Amino acid sequence: MTLAQTIGFLGPVGTYTEQAALLYSSKSTLTPLPTITAVGEAVALGETDQGIVPIENSLEGSVTYTLDLLITQDRLSIYNEIVIPIEHYLMAIQGTETSDISIIYSHPQALAQCRTFLHSHYPNAQQVASLSTVAAVTDMKSSSITAAAIAPHRASQLHDVEIIGENIQDNSNNVTRFVVLSDTDHPVTGNDKTSICFAFDSDSPGSLYGTLGEFARRSINLTKVESRPTKELLGQYIFLIDCDGHRKDPAVKEALDSISSKVSSLRILGSYPKWDLT
Amino acid sequence: MTLAQTIGFLGPVGTYTEQAALLYSSKSTLTPLPTITAVGEAVALGETDQGIVPIENSLEGSVTYTLDLLITQDRLSIYNEIVIPIEHYLMAIQGTETSDISIIYSHPQALAQCRTFLHSHYPNAQQVASLSTVAAVTDMKSSSITAAAIAPHRASQLHDVEIIGENIQDNSNNVTRFVVLSDTDHPVTGNDKTSICFAFDSDSPGSLYGTLGEFARRSINLTKVESRPTKELLGQYIFLIDCDGHRKDPAVKEALDSISSKVSSLRILGSYPKWDLT
Repeated sequence: MTLAQTIGFLGPVGTYTEQAALLYSSKSTLTPLPTITAVGEAVALGETDQGIVPIENSLEGSVTYTLDLLITQDRLSIYNEIVIPIEHYLMAIQGTETSDISIIYSHPQALAQCRTFLHSHYPNAQQVASLSTVAAVTDMKSSSITAAAIAPHRASQLHDVEIIGENIQDNSNNVTRFVVLSDTDHPVTGNDKTSICFAFDSDSPGSLYGTLGEFARRSINLTKVESRPTKELLGQYIFLIDCDGHRKDPAVKEALDSISSKVSSLRILGSYPKWDLT
Repeated sequence: MTLAQTIGFLGPVGTYTEQAALLYSSKSTLTPLPTITAVGEAVALGETDQGIVPIENSLEGSVTYTLDLLITQDRLSIYNEIVIPIEHYLMAIQGTETSDISIIYSHPQALAQCRTFLHSHYPNAQQVASLSTVAAVTDMKSSSITAAAIAPHRASQLHDVEIIGENIQDNSNNVTRFVVLSDTDHPVTGNDKTSICFAFDSDSPGSLYGTLGEFARRSINLTKVESRPTKELLGQYIFLIDCDGHRKDPAVKEALDSISSKVSSLRILGSYPKWDLT
């Protein structure tokens, strides 16, 4: 794999996306960017070689901003994927008495994912929404009332606060998949997947069915089927599909060629190595 | 249609969901509830006869909380749907000089949907996120700096503020679909749709394809195909499908019977009259 020299990621520093970026390429120059759109633009304009954004969480589902970016920005390809476990930590200013904690800050998704823990350990603490899990730590540090924050482990080191609860998420099956955006996709490795999106002009019975048939009759497994609105008319959708194999593998290539004649638009978002989930 | 005596809706008063509820049944007792989950629970426990929650926006896509509620809460059925246009209004305290406005409050989705308008009319105003479009109005009223809020028309009447911009959304195709939850679905009307969700035990090539085939070979049009994570393992999904017809129509009934033998779980979320979009 070519080493990307510069990688933009959805910031701020200390988020799960930075963790994914460090795991992917700790030797590259990593630059935090404020939004998913900004990461996409930096790659499309050549300001960074690659970009890393979350695309899917095992509990919350797809990150729709990332799907819409991939649908609309045709200068972006998926070069790789990264999957990391999401482990939430409870943290507070050094020496905080846990029994004094009356406010708990975090991103609303993180608060939701620790609902059972919070209910049993901090039933009377007020839960307050922050803009990100890292912002929760700074909100907690500047709170005039004794507070804690739910954030990634790395945020505790960056902000020099104390961890008072480890792995507090209710569901241990909490993983997030990230995609590495680039101006090209990845060469064949033999263990690849391909992401595509397509739409139909008119909504006739069986149009999606006919398209999926091109994969089924070649025994190509679909690993994801998702839809997004076209933003033109309620009830019109763009479909996003992930399938096993590289777009240069003969069976996948044949399937994609057949599909292109059945749809009104088809975009191959990229072929890239499958992340090893074991 | 039986008149529901009591209807819970996703509050607070003044939101688009209340607009939908008033359009659906202005003679019922309407009760605002704090969350989508609370609306579902009120109906499941019989505290209200029906409940109204948003399920899909033509620009943003599905409301995943509502999909997950329908998937998990088997005492709820969809009894009806309501589609209303989303029209954003800019409002300020009576007598505000528009040139003085330095902050604009709204829900992040509403700010995003008025991006072009804000960029051309208020390029220097700071955009601040509120918890709902109605909260934006109270945030605006209590702001020490001259501010405006983006909210539904009704919020201006409830909070006695002045409208200074009408229909300011960038995309005129902005509509939201709501569902009416009840303990049963709707009798046959002759112009119905049916919502179902299903999952597979193992992810074999063609399993979704085989299921869609039961609709295709009976020329039953699918109006929506969506997936949600099972929350057990990344890459395992629950599929949600809307199709034309009532579950008691012979073709739909046959298709659903055939599907039930191909999937590991199938839940019929309900059959209900199609909203007239014209």
